Amino acid sequence: MAIHYPNGKVYNPQPKTLAVKKKNYSFSNRGKTLEDELSEANDYYLANDIAVIYKKPIPIQIVKVDYPNRSGAVIREAYYRTPSTTDFNGVYQGKYIDFEAKETENKTSFPLKNVHLHQVEHMRKVSIQHGISFLLVRFSAFDRYFYLPFEQLHVFWDRMQTGGRKSIALAEFEEHAIEITPKYAPRIDYLQIVNDLNG
Amino acid sequence: MAIHYPNGKVYNPQPKTLAVKKKNYSFSNRGKTLEDELSEANDYYLANDIAVIYKKPIPIQIVKVDYPNRSGAVIREAYYRTPSTTDFNGVYQGKYIDFEAKETENKTSFPLKNVHLHQVEHMRKVSIQHGISFLLVRFSAFDRYFYLPFEQLHVFWDRMQTGGRKSIALAEFEEHAIEITPKYAPRIDYLQIVNDLNG
Repeated sequence: MAIHYPNGKVYNPQPKTLAVKKKNYSFSNRGKTLEDELSEANDYYLANDIAVIYKKPIPIQIVKVDYPNRSGAVIREAYYRTPSTTDFNGVYQGKYIDFEAKETENKTSFPLKNVHLHQVEHMRKVSIQHGISFLLVRFSAFDRYFYLPFEQLHVFWDRMQTGGRKSIALAEFEEHAIEITPKYAPRIDYLQIVNDLNG
Repeated sequence: MAIHYPNGKVYNPQPKTLAVKKKNYSFSNRGKTLEDELSEANDYYLANDIAVIYKKPIPIQIVKVDYPNRSGAVIREAYYRTPSTTDFNGVYQGKYIDFEAKETENKTSFPLKNVHLHQVEHMRKVSIQHGISFLLVRFSAFDRYFYLPFEQLHVFWDRMQTGGRKSIALAEFEEHAIEITPKYAPRIDYLQIVNDLNG
């Protein structure tokens, strides 16, 4: 695997130790959602002054609000809106971080319908501004996590747009993404990958 | 006015032309809220590939959701939550931008009760990560706008915490903040100040 990034740098991954990882049940995700795991990572980063990264609130269109008493308002009619950006953003050592996180039960590929066109457009604009943008995917059946830099996501997205396959194969993640090996704290230490790619 | 920033740089503002500004009604805000004006600025920055900055959605605690038909969900009970961060964030030429925007009808000072402790804490953490953090205040009675860098806000916040006044006087903004002179497009070009302070 040789991935080149816009700065021309080649990413040299550490040797994989899958055999060890598979036996290490103490690092299990214990049924947590990917969002829970990333929330834990972000809490860890925040508490240790490593980074300030938050999940954005879900955008809601509020239609009707009641004020039953002085203590507060109750929203009585509201609708989910389509997010125009990614789920997570923040700052890490002066770097702007922006990513989308998705999990799939699919065992062979990640369906690109899980990512919206406006999110890809947003990530493209972030890249133009020299922000660090990526897709974080969990293959839940295998408890495997991949960090796919936007530049790579863009290649697969273009392939779909020009009539190619509508998903990214697990084998393609293995070749073009960086696998995140769960560890103790935080379990999903995605900033380690940011370090390796941009350090 | 001589403002020193953490990098030791002195900010040299352009000569003020208030007499001209006051006569220039074509740049009026036309009754828009500060949020509308900043939304217009951010749209302008986005459309021109200058920056990618968004207002975060209001955080909502959703309690009850109905599914009256196949087309979608209706939120029937939800509550406003206190934001734990600032309103706006994004990326500008590799720089992480994070700010809170407030308007006041007060003619002599900005009451600090409009800013929450957890927001100041958030801005402090952003500063530690070398993000650019500031408070943008509109004195609506005068249509005047000020960019108060976090480092200055922090001084006034500490003054309050140690028993001092609970507001920042307009005169103090004139001395310690940078005034944003409205122009044509975008009307509130706050990134120009970011440029001047960090360029």
